Amino acid sequence: MDESLPAAYQQLCQHQRETAIFSSVEHLLGWDERTLMPPAAASYRAEQMTLLAGMIHRRQTDPQIGQWLEELADSPLAADRQSDAGTVIRQLKRQYEKRTRLPQALVEELAKLAIEGQQVWQQARQEDDYASFAPILKKTIELKRQQADAIGFADCRYDALLDDFEPQESTANVGRVLAALREDLVPLIRQIGDSRRAPDIELLQRRYPMDAQQAFGRAAAARIGFDFHRGRLDTTVHPFCSGLGPNDTRLTTRYDERFFPTAFFGILHEAGHGIYDQGLRQLWYGLPPGQEVSLGIHESQSRMWENQVGRSRAFWQFHFPLAQEAFPDTLAKVTLDEFYFAINLVRPSLIRVEADEATYNLHILIRFELEQALLEDDLPVDDLPTAWNEKYQAYLGVQPPNDREGVLQDIHWSSGAIGYFPTYALGNLYAAQFFAQADADLGDLKQQFASGQFEPLRQWLQRNIHQPGQCYPAAELVERVTGRPLDHQCLLQQLRAKLGPLYELD
Amino acid sequence: MDESLPAAYQQLCQHQRETAIFSSVEHLLGWDERTLMPPAAASYRAEQMTLLAGMIHRRQTDPQIGQWLEELADSPLAADRQSDAGTVIRQLKRQYEKRTRLPQALVEELAKLAIEGQQVWQQARQEDDYASFAPILKKTIELKRQQADAIGFADCRYDALLDDFEPQESTANVGRVLAALREDLVPLIRQIGDSRRAPDIELLQRRYPMDAQQAFGRAAAARIGFDFHRGRLDTTVHPFCSGLGPNDTRLTTRYDERFFPTAFFGILHEAGHGIYDQGLRQLWYGLPPGQEVSLGIHESQSRMWENQVGRSRAFWQFHFPLAQEAFPDTLAKVTLDEFYFAINLVRPSLIRVEADEATYNLHILIRFELEQALLEDDLPVDDLPTAWNEKYQAYLGVQPPNDREGVLQDIHWSSGAIGYFPTYALGNLYAAQFFAQADADLGDLKQQFASGQFEPLRQWLQRNIHQPGQCYPAAELVERVTGRPLDHQCLLQQLRAKLGPLYELD
Repeated sequence: MDESLPAAYQQLCQHQRETAIFSSVEHLLGWDERTLMPPAAASYRAEQMTLLAGMIHRRQTDPQIGQWLEELADSPLAADRQSDAGTVIRQLKRQYEKRTRLPQALVEELAKLAIEGQQVWQQARQEDDYASFAPILKKTIELKRQQADAIGFADCRYDALLDDFEPQESTANVGRVLAALREDLVPLIRQIGDSRRAPDIELLQRRYPMDAQQAFGRAAAARIGFDFHRGRLDTTVHPFCSGLGPNDTRLTTRYDERFFPTAFFGILHEAGHGIYDQGLRQLWYGLPPGQEVSLGIHESQSRMWENQVGRSRAFWQFHFPLAQEAFPDTLAKVTLDEFYFAINLVRPSLIRVEADEATYNLHILIRFELEQALLEDDLPVDDLPTAWNEKYQAYLGVQPPNDREGVLQDIHWSSGAIGYFPTYALGNLYAAQFFAQADADLGDLKQQFASGQFEPLRQWLQRNIHQPGQCYPAAELVERVTGRPLDHQCLLQQLRAKLGPLYELD
Repeated sequence: MDESLPAAYQQLCQHQRETAIFSSVEHLLGWDERTLMPPAAASYRAEQMTLLAGMIHRRQTDPQIGQWLEELADSPLAADRQSDAGTVIRQLKRQYEKRTRLPQALVEELAKLAIEGQQVWQQARQEDDYASFAPILKKTIELKRQQADAIGFADCRYDALLDDFEPQESTANVGRVLAALREDLVPLIRQIGDSRRAPDIELLQRRYPMDAQQAFGRAAAARIGFDFHRGRLDTTVHPFCSGLGPNDTRLTTRYDERFFPTAFFGILHEAGHGIYDQGLRQLWYGLPPGQEVSLGIHESQSRMWENQVGRSRAFWQFHFPLAQEAFPDTLAKVTLDEFYFAINLVRPSLIRVEADEATYNLHILIRFELEQALLEDDLPVDDLPTAWNEKYQAYLGVQPPNDREGVLQDIHWSSGAIGYFPTYALGNLYAAQFFAQADADLGDLKQQFASGQFEPLRQWLQRNIHQPGQCYPAAELVERVTGRPLDHQCLLQQLRAKLGPLYELD
């Protein structure tokens, strides 16, 4: 730390770094819970996490932070929008003000409801009983409205909730881009549905032994740039990536011996998240210049390695011969083109987490539109299943046979995470626009992938996306890196360029 | 919690339980560091642990504890020596007074020296250079004297240090029992050395595939009563058992494909520790009635399952056929008696951690005698290697060729752990005396083991040793359970009864 900086700044940073250490310990507790913890340890683990979370919350809302920020308000540091120190002050001020605007009682009520909501939801989903979930969803919506009102917003309540996941983004802007995407995507998917061409996905459903999948996936993650000296790969039920420290990034996946894509694209996806974390500036660990911009930007990194890279023909020009070595019995008589077509199946379906690269965005759009309507009181909670099913019919041409495979499929709303969904689609849009720029900057990426070279792309991402940390909000980062605001054109172009030839579209 | 109890008592317990939660989190950090953590994460892990340790220390020395204890001083609860509440007050008072007697500066100096000491020792051992270690050992001895003086002691400074590991035990008493053991053990080991019988240990050095060792060891641990629903078994370099919560006990081991005993007896040993932890009263987790009595008692549990049970012929009557199934190529032509003799090799050696069940105690005795002499200034640090070598010659008849295999072999002194060693030998003595009592109480244990029944012994241990927690100090527990004070007779008898026939002694 530069000794010439104001004492208040140094103390603020020190306090924040220590909070980050406690948070990273909380992440270890969470990671362990989801990977290795003995079954009977769950309730004590909850006690450990609650105690730590309470302590972290008290630190984050410590009035001392307000005093330091006040002392720094007139400092030239705070005014400097370009500097890291300016970013520290600006972002910590934003976070502190947002947190302290929430009444403690509401925070506690929300936390309690999240736990109860998830339990009720789990039961309701299992029994396909939306009516038993509706009351708690009503209460959740009501509390989220109170949360939005307490925090404040420019345009609509959804703005305040979206800000938790995609800071400084506006509902209007996201709505505009996603609506435009929908206008083009719905007909494209319909066209694909009408195509006479279809891949043979049976070849992905043969036997892929777990050990071989693990070795193959691990090698691919390392090849695209995930550093196993600073991270791990483990097994879990619902895969995730967790950051436990500047040099401790842990990927997880799950293996299906009868479906190759589950683990492999899961690993590429989580490795994308991990490569982002590993690409942040270590010296700023725990402070805004060394932290992720937003969930959408984080998702862009996972999606790019999974889709733009991992589902490209060029990637498999290099990897398919290795896959044939890893799974000799399974893939001996399969061709590269058959395999490539199979991993690019596009087909409307009911379940978001199993959706393909193209239709996935429509699953998100449906949720984004519905949660706005719920929040603005345009849609009564009791009418949600009907609205859900109508949108699935309209956008994807499919009809859920029950609420379990419909409106009850996701955990998010039950835990109070309203405003989270759009970050998934934003991730896809950011990824496409970044990737187009990287391709323009780096020459022919396809050729590099075909020869197993992924380091130029990783370095480009690190330089342009990872290293700035939170110096700019997502929208500004996109403009700075790609020269124009976010729109849906790159994603649409990339999907058309890939799917057009495969499905022989006009 | 009983609402009728005084508020000060309830608050004291609540505070202590929360401290225990933070400690259990620290244990998770430590466990993860030694099993799974990516190599590059070490320095941040140290930051996490230091921050947490500092917080725990502040909680443990919080003057509020002193106030609660003062309020409770005249309460009838405190006077009740038999009750759990009495144990809480008595033990927390002991701990608090001991901790607050140490000046903060000395605590910090000791912590710093422990880290530096281990680094210097590691280098010195590697280079077989005692002279480079001597200065820091001198400083350590000096600080440990200050520690003893600050804490206070009845008879000698060693009492104060021993108390950290074997609370309320006296140096004089331990010295008396260990000296008596030495008097009988030295001639017994000499007799064995002179025997014309010797096991063929080549059969233990054949190939034992790791996977098979793991499955075999895990099954044995479960069979003797370690509950894998409330625990795990993982791999590490220096095996240990760690308690991460009332239902989260983790064993570790290391595998040597060319030496069967390393992992197997290691697993039984750590499972013994784990069975103790799992046998404590969960409702009292984190408070003295639900905590281990002492390191010696803890060690008695690991040693009993490893030696009295695991190296008995009866144990292998049941397990040897299973071992032959698990390692068919390796053990097909080996007989039970050859195997049983091989795992009971007794032979004087230089390295403590590789020593057998009988000679191990002399390794401890040597260290116990030397560290008392160092502390009392009878032995200058510079003369330690000579004194070490003389004792090895006198007690074990072996001569270290260098200090690396002599005085520099253990980490303990370098980290300031003086007074720790005797707990290993006490563990062996307690184990023998408890085992003799269990055998008397439960009928023929041999017969039970031979038919794979270990649950009666485990339940006996849980009832008599685990469940009382810290209600009695170790010496009192031994008397209560076995009807007489600790002595060396049971251990000696058991060794003679086993080794006599094997080595055909008179």
